[in-house]
Amino acid sequence: MRLAELGEFGLIDRIRARFPQPAAPELGIGDDAALLSPSAGMQLVVSTDLLAEGVHFERSFGQLHLLGRKSLAVNLSDLAAMGARPRWFFLSLAMPAGFPLEEIEALLDGLAEQAAEHGVLLAGGDTCGSRSGLVISVTIMGEQRPERLLRRSAGRPGDDIWVSGALGDSALGLQLLLGQVEKADDTAASYVIHRHLDPTPRCGLGQMLAEAGLVSAMIDISDGLLADLGHICEQSGCGAELQLGQLPRSPQFAALTDAASPSCWQLMLSGGEDYELCFTAPAERRAAIQNQAKTAGIPATLIGKLTDSGGVVALLPDGSIFQPSASGYTHF
Amino acid sequence: MRLAELGEFGLIDRIRARFPQPAAPELGIGDDAALLSPSAGMQLVVSTDLLAEGVHFERSFGQLHLLGRKSLAVNLSDLAAMGARPRWFFLSLAMPAGFPLEEIEALLDGLAEQAAEHGVLLAGGDTCGSRSGLVISVTIMGEQRPERLLRRSAGRPGDDIWVSGALGDSALGLQLLLGQVEKADDTAASYVIHRHLDPTPRCGLGQMLAEAGLVSAMIDISDGLLADLGHICEQSGCGAELQLGQLPRSPQFAALTDAASPSCWQLMLSGGEDYELCFTAPAERRAAIQNQAKTAGIPATLIGKLTDSGGVVALLPDGSIFQPSASGYTHF
Repeated sequence: MRLAELGEFGLIDRIRARFPQPAAPELGIGDDAALLSPSAGMQLVVSTDLLAEGVHFERSFGQLHLLGRKSLAVNLSDLAAMGARPRWFFLSLAMPAGFPLEEIEALLDGLAEQAAEHGVLLAGGDTCGSRSGLVISVTIMGEQRPERLLRRSAGRPGDDIWVSGALGDSALGLQLLLGQVEKADDTAASYVIHRHLDPTPRCGLGQMLAEAGLVSAMIDISDGLLADLGHICEQSGCGAELQLGQLPRSPQFAALTDAASPSCWQLMLSGGEDYELCFTAPAERRAAIQNQAKTAGIPATLIGKLTDSGGVVALLPDGSIFQPSASGYTHF
Repeated sequence: MRLAELGEFGLIDRIRARFPQPAAPELGIGDDAALLSPSAGMQLVVSTDLLAEGVHFERSFGQLHLLGRKSLAVNLSDLAAMGARPRWFFLSLAMPAGFPLEEIEALLDGLAEQAAEHGVLLAGGDTCGSRSGLVISVTIMGEQRPERLLRRSAGRPGDDIWVSGALGDSALGLQLLLGQVEKADDTAASYVIHRHLDPTPRCGLGQMLAEAGLVSAMIDISDGLLADLGHICEQSGCGAELQLGQLPRSPQFAALTDAASPSCWQLMLSGGEDYELCFTAPAERRAAIQNQAKTAGIPATLIGKLTDSGGVVALLPDGSIFQPSASGYTHF
């Protein structure tokens, strides 16, 4: 069955049936707008991302289920970076009329799965035709006490720089998917490809760090560590010094790359789509941060410190300065 | 200059410079998410619309400025239909890399103009490349006291059915743009074409009716009167009887159409994109509603009444039943 046979309202009914709806007196799908109430004393935190076929993903990768998961994951990651608790999301889909129904079902499966894992409710959206590819627009809303929210602008010179998880897996996975590098090890290759197709938003860790008041500034790494740490530096009026030898890498990434090669640093610094958290904190909080990370079950690694000025400087293990060739993904 | 030369962050800077930003302690463009605070006692009202080139608009119509206005207007209309006051919006744009900068500026001009007219602030968004056409996704957020909000489900049998403004202009304008009908009168044709390209969301009237507590159910007419009144009937558990002879038409529409022809009724009933308000209210509030409409400066016309059941029935001036050929626009 194709989308054209199901029709717009048939599709909306299927979407509605798939997701649990906000409970009264709130109002989800089915009126001109959704009605929502943030909890008392909470500030509303809102982010939006647009994913377009041929730009963010290729349908030839064939995994609409994982694409559904990822569409929500990248938005959840933005809330994680503020330390906010996800509550509701809005889903807009532009789809060619010939889109096969099984692929739509797979996409919705992935979205529903990710939504359930993070306790976020579908509150509304829009569906329409598309002349060419699939376009997915997600707007996500969360909440947090205003004094707990973590902005990019509160880093201070001398603060430690931390990163969650491991860097470079996603970018290496994309290179493998595109056939730009060879698969040296099938198990390791599958792992990094999966990290590209199904990244894990660090919502739990982000909220814990925010609520514990341990962190000064935080951002999620979507455009690559250099570019995103650069945003913290710019908005905090600082510079940064990174120790490349300390950047965390997964065993799978290590098995697939030449540890000391510029292309390996490049993947970890500028590859993008890691969806890890990069955050800064005064040095006296090191033990407390390690404890929080342990509780959240996500490794946190100290990778450098904020400086007075001078942009982001990446130091090789021998102390010399690494000159990256690009500082992050940019559209157009 | 083309988009590819300006780059993603250049574009974001231009967008940011164009729109006034939420005042502290709120936070707009420039962090992972926007921070917003609905006023005390207010419920949050959220709606989203996706507009795709080749589906909702043709760039060959050439009026990117009006497209900017319309992208926000269709979202404002959803808030108007709930009786909510618009506060913030989020703008996501997918654009081909070769998109000329003047067209982007024109699009932003139109958006900024409509935003200023309705006091709604740009709080965030996303920009990315597009393999084919322009895609515009807008999520709008407003607020209203929970007890004032107007839903589709509160119509009661015997209630009057009202409509604001005039019907059919937009659909006739689209037919003229597509060359499906001939331009009989240039001034009148320009008027209805403009109504299609630059519809007026009825925000002021919607809020006034909500705050005065005069109305039972309300919806905006985007898919056509029959389809949208059908939603009120379905969700209120009612039927409806429409008097076709009472449907309001503009003098320009009258000059371009044969008043009693089926195609004329069809445009007014199913043409879509009117963005007028259709609302229901007990008969004893007629005078009060006329007063409100006068204050808002928008005509309101009584066009029928809700019945116990039986779907939406459209009666011709001679009392016979009109059989429409389609009940509204549907995607796919």
